[in-house]
Amino acid sequence: MANPVLPSSGVLAPLGLDAVRLSPGFWGDRAALNREVTIDHCREWEEREGWIGNFRGERPRRGREFSDSEIYKLLEAMAWAGHPGLPALAETVAQAQEGDGYLNTRWSGSRYTDFEWGHELYCYGHLIQAGVARLRTHGQDLLAEVVLKAADHVCRRFMDGAETCGHPVIEMALVELYRATGTERYLEMARRFVERRGLPALADIPFGRGYYQDDVPVRQAQVFRGHVVRALYLASGVVDVAVETGDQELLKAVEAQWERTVARRTHLTGGMGSRHADESYGEDYELPPDRAYNETCASIASVMLAHRLLLATGDVRYADLTERTLYNMLATGVALDGRSFFYANPLQVRVPAVPHDGVNHAAEGGLRSPWFDVSCCPNNIARTLASLPAYLAAGAGDGIVLHHFTPSEIRHGRLAVRVETGYPWTGSVRVRVVDDGAGRIGLRVPAWAADATLARVPVSARDAPLPDGPVVRPVSPGYVHVEGPWRAGDELRLELPIRPRWTFPDRRIDALRGSAAVERGPLVYCAESVADEPPLGDLTVSTEPPVERPADDGAEGVVELEVTASIGGSADGGGWPYGAAGAPEDGADVRLRLVPYHRWGNRGPATMRVWLPTIPQAK
Amino acid sequence: MANPVLPSSGVLAPLGLDAVRLSPGFWGDRAALNREVTIDHCREWEEREGWIGNFRGERPRRGREFSDSEIYKLLEAMAWAGHPGLPALAETVAQAQEGDGYLNTRWSGSRYTDFEWGHELYCYGHLIQAGVARLRTHGQDLLAEVVLKAADHVCRRFMDGAETCGHPVIEMALVELYRATGTERYLEMARRFVERRGLPALADIPFGRGYYQDDVPVRQAQVFRGHVVRALYLASGVVDVAVETGDQELLKAVEAQWERTVARRTHLTGGMGSRHADESYGEDYELPPDRAYNETCASIASVMLAHRLLLATGDVRYADLTERTLYNMLATGVALDGRSFFYANPLQVRVPAVPHDGVNHAAEGGLRSPWFDVSCCPNNIARTLASLPAYLAAGAGDGIVLHHFTPSEIRHGRLAVRVETGYPWTGSVRVRVVDDGAGRIGLRVPAWAADATLARVPVSARDAPLPDGPVVRPVSPGYVHVEGPWRAGDELRLELPIRPRWTFPDRRIDALRGSAAVERGPLVYCAESVADEPPLGDLTVSTEPPVERPADDGAEGVVELEVTASIGGSADGGGWPYGAAGAPEDGADVRLRLVPYHRWGNRGPATMRVWLPTIPQAK
Repeated sequence: MANPVLPSSGVLAPLGLDAVRLSPGFWGDRAALNREVTIDHCREWEEREGWIGNFRGERPRRGREFSDSEIYKLLEAMAWAGHPGLPALAETVAQAQEGDGYLNTRWSGSRYTDFEWGHELYCYGHLIQAGVARLRTHGQDLLAEVVLKAADHVCRRFMDGAETCGHPVIEMALVELYRATGTERYLEMARRFVERRGLPALADIPFGRGYYQDDVPVRQAQVFRGHVVRALYLASGVVDVAVETGDQELLKAVEAQWERTVARRTHLTGGMGSRHADESYGEDYELPPDRAYNETCASIASVMLAHRLLLATGDVRYADLTERTLYNMLATGVALDGRSFFYANPLQVRVPAVPHDGVNHAAEGGLRSPWFDVSCCPNNIARTLASLPAYLAAGAGDGIVLHHFTPSEIRHGRLAVRVETGYPWTGSVRVRVVDDGAGRIGLRVPAWAADATLARVPVSARDAPLPDGPVVRPVSPGYVHVEGPWRAGDELRLELPIRPRWTFPDRRIDALRGSAAVERGPLVYCAESVADEPPLGDLTVSTEPPVERPADDGAEGVVELEVTASIGGSADGGGWPYGAAGAPEDGADVRLRLVPYHRWGNRGPATMRVWLPTIPQAK
Repeated sequence: MANPVLPSSGVLAPLGLDAVRLSPGFWGDRAALNREVTIDHCREWEEREGWIGNFRGERPRRGREFSDSEIYKLLEAMAWAGHPGLPALAETVAQAQEGDGYLNTRWSGSRYTDFEWGHELYCYGHLIQAGVARLRTHGQDLLAEVVLKAADHVCRRFMDGAETCGHPVIEMALVELYRATGTERYLEMARRFVERRGLPALADIPFGRGYYQDDVPVRQAQVFRGHVVRALYLASGVVDVAVETGDQELLKAVEAQWERTVARRTHLTGGMGSRHADESYGEDYELPPDRAYNETCASIASVMLAHRLLLATGDVRYADLTERTLYNMLATGVALDGRSFFYANPLQVRVPAVPHDGVNHAAEGGLRSPWFDVSCCPNNIARTLASLPAYLAAGAGDGIVLHHFTPSEIRHGRLAVRVETGYPWTGSVRVRVVDDGAGRIGLRVPAWAADATLARVPVSARDAPLPDGPVVRPVSPGYVHVEGPWRAGDELRLELPIRPRWTFPDRRIDALRGSAAVERGPLVYCAESVADEPPLGDLTVSTEPPVERPADDGAEGVVELEVTASIGGSADGGGWPYGAAGAPEDGADVRLRLVPYHRWGNRGPATMRVWLPTIPQAK
């Protein structure tokens, strides 16, 4: 099955790219843009930057020590998307493989001399994920051959001993290769990598061993910590190992870590990462909006982990976080034209960026960039959008469960449905049964949807007038299931209460004290101010209900909002910004436009803030 | 004169270590501890870590690329303190100097191949500052010889061309060597280094050229930015060049940059630096208490700059910031036993540190450390405390101006005074004239002292009863001057209103919204909670006047404070920390003890916060 994650057991069964087909709509449009634009964009930049040339032996070698992995992520994207460029690129990669399976353009002369920073096993991990994608979409070929040879090399070299890699990903890659091939040593190798971590297996570094989750064995950890992408890739592999070995204790450990992390270390957008210095989680409740790191790749890793936990447990909270992360992080990470990307995703930008269309040497900035020195994010977006259908729905027995609502067709067993909706702009979701069939249909009612309703409309009653019309019943957040059998044309009509709402932070989040944000359905909104006009640095909003508006730029269907704000009276705070309490100044009232967070940064250099002050400051 | 900064002109004239003698008291005790303990502590660690051995040619070379500079800072401290170990250490250093004057234990085989990160000119800068200290306290000797040879090498190598160093300090060092020797090429070399910067002179890096102030010429910059120590060392050198060349435009540029930086980029403690990633300033009003970096060295650099600006202009605001920085940063940077140090100085610590008495590999942590991989701070503290008297008072014509009040004796021209005070614990300052003399005496009334009083008490009237007693008059913040002539025994009695006060942040500082801090005199206070009991993560304080208390640990004279706080009712915020507004929970009322910020972290692992929430959070 064309699916990046195929556990052998779990409460839910994954549905792959062959079972879920996107139609034009919020995600279908993005997947098409990815297939038609972003994948080639990545390939062109990797050629231009010399990272592909490294495999052809061009010297001097170019790019960072982990640049091989970008080509592998791209290969995975190509595999899921059925991109015709894959065989040629795979052939280039194969040129660099050594006789015993070793493959790395940076370290071939000095193999395995730097486990902390070398990223060799990390590169294999991404290579193997590309190979699994190829095996499941195409079957055996040169890429699959390269991958198996490399995986066998890894097992020979690392099965015994205590070594592991500073950057996880090999764990989940090996489990998936085991699932794809049935070769048990891949699972055993993954299990050992998981169990070695935290004994410790790696050297101490200035960031501390927590940076690469080597501070404590994974079973004993209480929370995700350190480098966010590392933490979440590792946790994904741990879930995979736990599921395949039936290790409930291990699974519970990750569930508990996830729970605390979501409750205390996650930004409103679903983004994770509070520190730039080591791209890491902060401490509990350390969630600064301006310095939020929220790496795009971390959000992808979060979706990968939540998906695995959802399949294993069926617990709706994993789907709720995934929805939040998809709409506010993944959709934010790439521009509307598919050719530029955010790396960090802060919730506040104070100074408009300076436009620049070359490589962004930093990982941040208030405008999306076409490329980065470390370009994990563009390739990671490409492979995720190319495999997105696998995350939207699942099988449960002979039934279907819909986690996310976007125009699509879904088949599983004897059941086929078509989803029609303007979600996330509107809350009406229509699920129409395509052929006569059986099996339950489950729909997720999101956690924010407190007064949703559901109607089952038999095809025979579709045009019936009330009171003979469909029975509308209230449904609560969580999964709601409707039993079959079904006649072709039967419909489920879910109405989600999509309207703007004010959201307040937990009182322990110091950085957000006295502020509130606006959400609407699954979308987080933000004030975006082109050229900082009006200025966003000194305002107070009124938390009356926001007013809906069509998009300023005319984008069809897009809903923007307006709230009332008072803009501070004086630009000058005097020579010292601390002092005795004073009366709040009278500011000028303005109507402040809020745009969906995922659409910000597409209108030129701007300031932005998600969290809006609600109390006048004392000085 | 024994003084680190001797401009040839300026509104105020510096008074050196020979003119200002500290008596036992707040600073006198610290200077003595520094002389008796800290300097030897630094030398022992530098020997143990191999950084001194590098000069003896011991291999492999140990320490970071700039470790030579630590030995130079230590040599400067030894010179000011008259430490007997100086000649032997200078002899060791001299061994590594090459025939043409080049001296660097890291780069001798590959000179000047990395201006961005090599720190070669930075090391010379500190070497030269040590040499100036030696020249001014002792005169010509081996160390001075090494320094002049090195300085001449620098001038030969760099007078023409466009090169400079990624880390400034060479600029102010060369100007001071010019002042000490009269050799004009040193001034010219410094001037060229200043003017080259920002053309640009250095390569672009991921942090951006702003990191080392090479983004824009110094005359055009609007504010300090990038790496804080670099920015302030450079600005100090710029002031020195401006003063010696009579370049008013250049001086005004630095004054304007300082003004904006103090108004928008400075923490309540006087600390500067909001980002860990590049040890840099944040943007305007980006002042997070928890992630405040506030490097100890940055505060020293800030004092160095403010001192230069004060001498040049006589403007009291430079002395006000210096006072704040000395009492809340310099005094905080070193433990009460003189053997451990803070590198970063945040205003909030959420998790008690784990005790550890070896090298701290990171630059942060909630307990002071005996040493760091990058140990600039201990040596910088040592040289600053050893030369502290030079910062406390100045000459103005035949008069004396007292910037800072601490027990001491001060002589200038025909005037000699003795200062007696319990400052900063009490606000009574008595300045007694020692011998008959003439000249004005100036006293700084700090900006926070809104209702201070001053009395002039002739020796003849010292015991006179009212109404024949001294006339007490109100004095306003700024300098107040009293004319001579003087009789031995005449007194000035300054009464500063030292009582606790609540301080609020400018409304543009998002990270401090809804919080207030307590100050008392020049001291910032903080809640320190050993083992986080009571917990500081979820409290609301009442801003009633704090109550004064003797120190919990019995320290004589030290004043602690108590306020009323409500500790949050529930430790659990639920599964997701954002949601609809709810009624504030009832918490438990506690009396919360506040300690002077500079004394925190001396009682074992603790949490700490300067800014105390004043509003109940909504969720």
